[in-house]
Amino acid sequence: MDVTSKLQASPPQTGAEAPPLTRELARFTAQHPSGAWDAATEQAALRTILNWLGCAIGAALHPAVDAAVAAMLDLDPPASVTILGRREKMDAASAALVNGISSHVFDYDDTHPTTLIHPSGPVVAAALAVAERYDLSGRALVDAVVLGVDVACRAGLLVCPEHYDRGWHVTGSAGVLGAAAAVARLLEMDTQTTTMALGLAASQPIGLREQFGSMAKPFHPGAAARAGITSALLARRGFTAAATALEGKRGYARVLSDRQHWGRALSGLGERFEIVANTFKPYACGLVIHPCIDACLTLRAQHSLQPADIASVALRVHPLVLELTGKTQPRTGLDGKFSVFHACAAALVRGAAGIAEFQQEAVEQPEVVALRGRISATAEDGLPHEAAHATIVCKDGRSFSHRVDHALGSLERPMSDHDLDAKFAALVEPVLGTDKAAHLQQSCWSLAEARTLAPFLGQARP
Amino acid sequence: MDVTSKLQASPPQTGAEAPPLTRELARFTAQHPSGAWDAATEQAALRTILNWLGCAIGAALHPAVDAAVAAMLDLDPPASVTILGRREKMDAASAALVNGISSHVFDYDDTHPTTLIHPSGPVVAAALAVAERYDLSGRALVDAVVLGVDVACRAGLLVCPEHYDRGWHVTGSAGVLGAAAAVARLLEMDTQTTTMALGLAASQPIGLREQFGSMAKPFHPGAAARAGITSALLARRGFTAAATALEGKRGYARVLSDRQHWGRALSGLGERFEIVANTFKPYACGLVIHPCIDACLTLRAQHSLQPADIASVALRVHPLVLELTGKTQPRTGLDGKFSVFHACAAALVRGAAGIAEFQQEAVEQPEVVALRGRISATAEDGLPHEAAHATIVCKDGRSFSHRVDHALGSLERPMSDHDLDAKFAALVEPVLGTDKAAHLQQSCWSLAEARTLAPFLGQARP
Repeated sequence: MDVTSKLQASPPQTGAEAPPLTRELARFTAQHPSGAWDAATEQAALRTILNWLGCAIGAALHPAVDAAVAAMLDLDPPASVTILGRREKMDAASAALVNGISSHVFDYDDTHPTTLIHPSGPVVAAALAVAERYDLSGRALVDAVVLGVDVACRAGLLVCPEHYDRGWHVTGSAGVLGAAAAVARLLEMDTQTTTMALGLAASQPIGLREQFGSMAKPFHPGAAARAGITSALLARRGFTAAATALEGKRGYARVLSDRQHWGRALSGLGERFEIVANTFKPYACGLVIHPCIDACLTLRAQHSLQPADIASVALRVHPLVLELTGKTQPRTGLDGKFSVFHACAAALVRGAAGIAEFQQEAVEQPEVVALRGRISATAEDGLPHEAAHATIVCKDGRSFSHRVDHALGSLERPMSDHDLDAKFAALVEPVLGTDKAAHLQQSCWSLAEARTLAPFLGQARP
Repeated sequence: MDVTSKLQASPPQTGAEAPPLTRELARFTAQHPSGAWDAATEQAALRTILNWLGCAIGAALHPAVDAAVAAMLDLDPPASVTILGRREKMDAASAALVNGISSHVFDYDDTHPTTLIHPSGPVVAAALAVAERYDLSGRALVDAVVLGVDVACRAGLLVCPEHYDRGWHVTGSAGVLGAAAAVARLLEMDTQTTTMALGLAASQPIGLREQFGSMAKPFHPGAAARAGITSALLARRGFTAAATALEGKRGYARVLSDRQHWGRALSGLGERFEIVANTFKPYACGLVIHPCIDACLTLRAQHSLQPADIASVALRVHPLVLELTGKTQPRTGLDGKFSVFHACAAALVRGAAGIAEFQQEAVEQPEVVALRGRISATAEDGLPHEAAHATIVCKDGRSFSHRVDHALGSLERPMSDHDLDAKFAALVEPVLGTDKAAHLQQSCWSLAEARTLAPFLGQARP
């Protein structure tokens, strides 16, 4: 999805001298005062944590998570840290690996639109595991998430879009720095020690885009979370790294990207927090087809359309939509995510495009299959990739059109807190039941006041 | 040391279509019969293991290893697998991390000259930890080392020298594939499962050259060992990855290197084993000054020279020697490794250039300091980088010259088994004492016959 990156329009600052990035980001991580940001930033952190938690618990019984849990148990870990949505416990690093995997399995987590990083996977997975391990406060956790997400996104801003275009899954390759920063903050490491932690993290960029479509994609945020924890723990015990690991001649920015954007990485540091720009998905599939789904759901609601009423659906889409999601005959749930035809049919039939709509059952549902065959899509070069247009013609001759310029969940049209609550409930209730899901959701919104995370995490297990 | 890579002369095979590398290497790893190679290959494996073990035990009390042990113990691991040269035990993945670190701390381990990979760090560390965890045989371990080293070096051949020149520390970034292969072999994984293990490993390339000079350098083989173990364990439990992770459009070879050498990676697979080309260092410093040390030690022995006899030493060296090791006033042991003047002075005074000669004490030794001031070096453009020339003028007017074309420890003049035994003893005796060192050495040469590794590893702890 190279073209979806918003960075391509802004000029790179190559040729400029590299600033002491590793140390500056470390100083920020170590020294920025607790909670010293506006209410929108604080709320963005809670939204990020809630959304991440829902995704992780919702996928807790997925085969990828089963495999990861079994593999980590092969190492006989101690039962210290919670695996979300499951009974097993393990050491903090392994738990972060597993929770980072589960949170990205459904591809339903958050997105920092400018870099395409899914920041909570690496950052919250690492921070939550370490906060539980050392019995730290909710306030410390929220601080670590704000600062860790900031470092991850700034590492991404430093090297994207060229880094992503080269083939890196930036969620893991930049996320590892955010994870290390979050853990360094939680463990109250000073600037020098945090510099070493970021240095060690820079040597462990995780994730190739070749893996998209396999379990290795969600492995990336999990592995980044674990590598971030290791980096911080090692540094805390005196392990060293290059203090120029990010900006040096053979460092992260130059080795991992064909261009370096030095200015972006530090611009507004400590004043503007990237977590404010974090977005959440209302639909459980790739962002590229969200505008189409959004248009169909809007028409369905506005005109109380029933599937049987619909004669045809004509979509006008950005060319990338057909390139990436042009499957006309999806056979599996995963196929369904790569079929704009299935996504729109399921949305029109079921009034939603959540996890359930991309399961085998939904892909085979006769009403969905029937409607799918009546949907057409035309690529339109002039259309922005955030936009889509749908025209629905009814069997009775009525015709309705709707254009979406920005889908629900975009930075321009964010999901409301209420939307996020509903998404959380839909993910968590099937795994933990209604009561626990409700309790957990409530505790999450007041997480910053929690003196200890134990009661909160107690609700996150079956 | 870009110019020391022997790959630069051979033409890359770009433009050629990518073969199914991931699967071919997996098939080889899973299916090559046990011990199906010549005696030289088998002996190379035992030499590799012995040399690696000595390096790891010799550095067991180094501050980097103290820090790594303390950090991993922070996770409360089970006491299942040996930390070489120490009393602590931990889970197999953490033990592999620590043993991989200690084995590279002194920069005294092995080198595959064509790729500059130090293959035993990632491969033997991973294989030994898993073999102990699952109580496997010495035969299985030796097989895993031969095959794992082969996969690591072939991954390096695929992307070097461009990959190394870009700034990757290929020991970690290709080593992770060898570690995963070794563990997959030990756990008797089939071709398909091994393909997944290599796929997961390809997403975890570890190591930037910016780290050279810090503890993060030896962290790279350790982290690669651990990542290799994780990859294999996950795959064994059903976790998936792209089967084209190495050769695909957004895969390892294209993302991590500006050129791909497809043909090299598979050439002679199963017939020729890269471990035969593995070399071992007689001197505890960078390879670039080995020819100078060798020339000085040769003259010292041939003419029974005493330091007090020597009026001056004139070296003629490849330009890189002065560029990389031109420090005239070293102050620390580490400085000493970057001073051809110190290395040659210490060798002439003490008759050796082992670990002891690059400690603070040797750098400050009055006789060494005095002789250091009487050594000069001239860069000579025409000289091959493997060569050096030394002329020693004595106070009594005698003058002796010697030219080295290939230093001891090179592929052309390998260390003998006896040399390796002496190196092993010098490393291990200070940590474990003479008896254990001798027993361990003996057991190592007959490792392939060991039904279990427990007695062997029992000797590797204080």
